[in-house]
Amino acid sequence: MENEEVILLDLWASPFGMRAKIALALKGINYEHRDEDLSNKSDLLLKTNPVHKKIPVLIHNGKPICESLIIVEYIDEIWPHKFPLLPLDPYQRASARFWADFVDKKIYGARNRKIRTAKGEEQEAAKEELIENLKLLEGELGNKAYFGGEHLGYVDVVLVPIYSWFYTNEKFGNFSFETECPKLIAWAKRCFEQESVCKSLPDQDKIYQHALQLMKRSGYE
Amino acid sequence: MENEEVILLDLWASPFGMRAKIALALKGINYEHRDEDLSNKSDLLLKTNPVHKKIPVLIHNGKPICESLIIVEYIDEIWPHKFPLLPLDPYQRASARFWADFVDKKIYGARNRKIRTAKGEEQEAAKEELIENLKLLEGELGNKAYFGGEHLGYVDVVLVPIYSWFYTNEKFGNFSFETECPKLIAWAKRCFEQESVCKSLPDQDKIYQHALQLMKRSGYE
Repeated sequence: MENEEVILLDLWASPFGMRAKIALALKGINYEHRDEDLSNKSDLLLKTNPVHKKIPVLIHNGKPICESLIIVEYIDEIWPHKFPLLPLDPYQRASARFWADFVDKKIYGARNRKIRTAKGEEQEAAKEELIENLKLLEGELGNKAYFGGEHLGYVDVVLVPIYSWFYTNEKFGNFSFETECPKLIAWAKRCFEQESVCKSLPDQDKIYQHALQLMKRSGYE
Repeated sequence: MENEEVILLDLWASPFGMRAKIALALKGINYEHRDEDLSNKSDLLLKTNPVHKKIPVLIHNGKPICESLIIVEYIDEIWPHKFPLLPLDPYQRASARFWADFVDKKIYGARNRKIRTAKGEEQEAAKEELIENLKLLEGELGNKAYFGGEHLGYVDVVLVPIYSWFYTNEKFGNFSFETECPKLIAWAKRCFEQESVCKSLPDQDKIYQHALQLMKRSGYE
């Protein structure tokens, strides 16, 4: 495990990059973090992710791994002994993968962005849909401390980065996640007590300032 | 392995269901196939996939597994000894998952449908984009017999079902996949020589008749 070269091509505000950061922190892996300028992507990014040209990319001993869910599974498979993320039982693994896929399809992405970019009815619909999907996640969490049970697991690592964007969405959408989904917020706060999480996620206000700049640059009011 | 109950909730024309059928055939698993009427979904489908309410669902000894990529990985993990689909090496596993994810994001779904439903420039753009992405897959295939190497692997199982829709897309889009992507068509024909594939995929003309009916019902000319 000595002399391993691990590089993460990332953008500090990306929740997808945060997934890789949390997983690497949980496994105790030293790595070099390189922040990309997405308006002027590095040759290394274009070479290591020629298909999607997106961050994050994990480069392990010269070999690139792309797509954050796949990166987290890779990290778990390469360093399996410390802090296993996916359960061993195939049915529980399938269940964890199902909810991670649900998070990607229903929580991140366009729906989430609409809370910041849409107005009126369209914004309300985006909020309602997001909250409905977060409530489904609350149902899956049930009375467990984490989605992984007693410890952080795959779904926790995949979902918790979006929490760093909650404050921003609340400011733009004029609502409170804590009122709507108190169990999920309590879970997020529990995750934050873990050093691997709190040191991997940026300050919520810094994200908000970043979002304001992005909106301005995109021509939104 | 005796007395196992395996049920697949499916729709015969679904390429996602075909993935599960091929994987089960490769592993030599007997199962009960139930065709769903998607305009009148069964209580069992609604109960076993309450989140997405979609086929396919694999029910193994009473436990449901949803989402076709996850179903194929589950089948591979539960019955690992016969015909392993994912490689053992973590980097090769990540690479297979990357291309399976690419197939889901760039080959299936809305883009593919547009070849049948859009007209003029929009249809041309959809065709061009699909062919460009299929060429990327040809690049990944390289000189291998299958994406899995000497034998069918995860990416082969995930990709080959779309071949049953190629004839339909060619008829609607007035073009030839064989002219555009000859290496990929040669690969698909190699896959078809495998009993697990040819018995799991429906006749291309039956799919075309089905697509014509769907279009009529949706109000397209």
